[in-house]
Amino acid sequence: MEPIIRIIAVGGLKERCLLQAEKYYLSRLKPMYNISVIELPDEPAPDYLSAAGRQAVLACEGRRIISRFMPSNVKASLAVSGIPVDMAFFRNLIYKPAMENRRLDFIIGGSLGLSENVLRQSDYKISLSRFTFPHRLSRLILLEILLQANIAGGEPT
Amino acid sequence: MEPIIRIIAVGGLKERCLLQAEKYYLSRLKPMYNISVIELPDEPAPDYLSAAGRQAVLACEGRRIISRFMPSNVKASLAVSGIPVDMAFFRNLIYKPAMENRRLDFIIGGSLGLSENVLRQSDYKISLSRFTFPHRLSRLILLEILLQANIAGGEPT
Repeated sequence: MEPIIRIIAVGGLKERCLLQAEKYYLSRLKPMYNISVIELPDEPAPDYLSAAGRQAVLACEGRRIISRFMPSNVKASLAVSGIPVDMAFFRNLIYKPAMENRRLDFIIGGSLGLSENVLRQSDYKISLSRFTFPHRLSRLILLEILLQANIAGGEPT
Repeated sequence: MEPIIRIIAVGGLKERCLLQAEKYYLSRLKPMYNISVIELPDEPAPDYLSAAGRQAVLACEGRRIISRFMPSNVKASLAVSGIPVDMAFFRNLIYKPAMENRRLDFIIGGSLGLSENVLRQSDYKISLSRFTFPHRLSRLILLEILLQANIAGGEPT
């Protein structure tokens, strides 16, 4: 059963080279997964936003994300405060929904992260690193881990 | 005192897009650090190498790395088995040598990692992630962390 994976990401990869790197990864991943990237527009977030301003940006981006949610999909949000996961966890995360005929969504927030609403509606809040990477690199890191999860030996037993 | 940093890496970034991403990062880092990348040739390592074969590859690549070592430089090797570091550690790692007028070398192995000899001669063995990234991505991740280490507030107090 081929995993069906959507990456729902806020904000574009603005640098051409990172965009090309993502294309390269997707071309390598396509034989392994039914994978797609849904890129949602981000809200302008100046460096010095008030707390209320931050909440407004997060809420707005959050509504866009939630509008793409499907009830039966397993939702895994990338969050600094999420549980630190390793490859074993990650491979289960990918292949278990597929065995149950469910799709999997990874959610990557914009520069401010994800709203409480999005996090509350997520089945998993996961942290891929002790460092917080900007979304531009988080997307590539997620794709690289997806690549390794398959190369590392196919479906888990 | 501007940190002087060398990244000694085994193997090339073969994908053009990752090479461009590295260039992009280096152009952003140049105003912050005196930074250079020394790329050393990797040895051919077929998928199914014997244990002895792996040791031979590691030893050969290790000799190339060690030939670039300078006694007074602080050497930080990226190793899966290294200590898990966070941003506070990382920023100290960058700025402390600079304050002592010492240069800092980051060492990134090839697809098989680093030889025992290299690890033994390293001042620090650090792990940037619970996932092992291929060297192609490790280089970008290191560069991104270097970028954040500076943006996060300049020199530590």
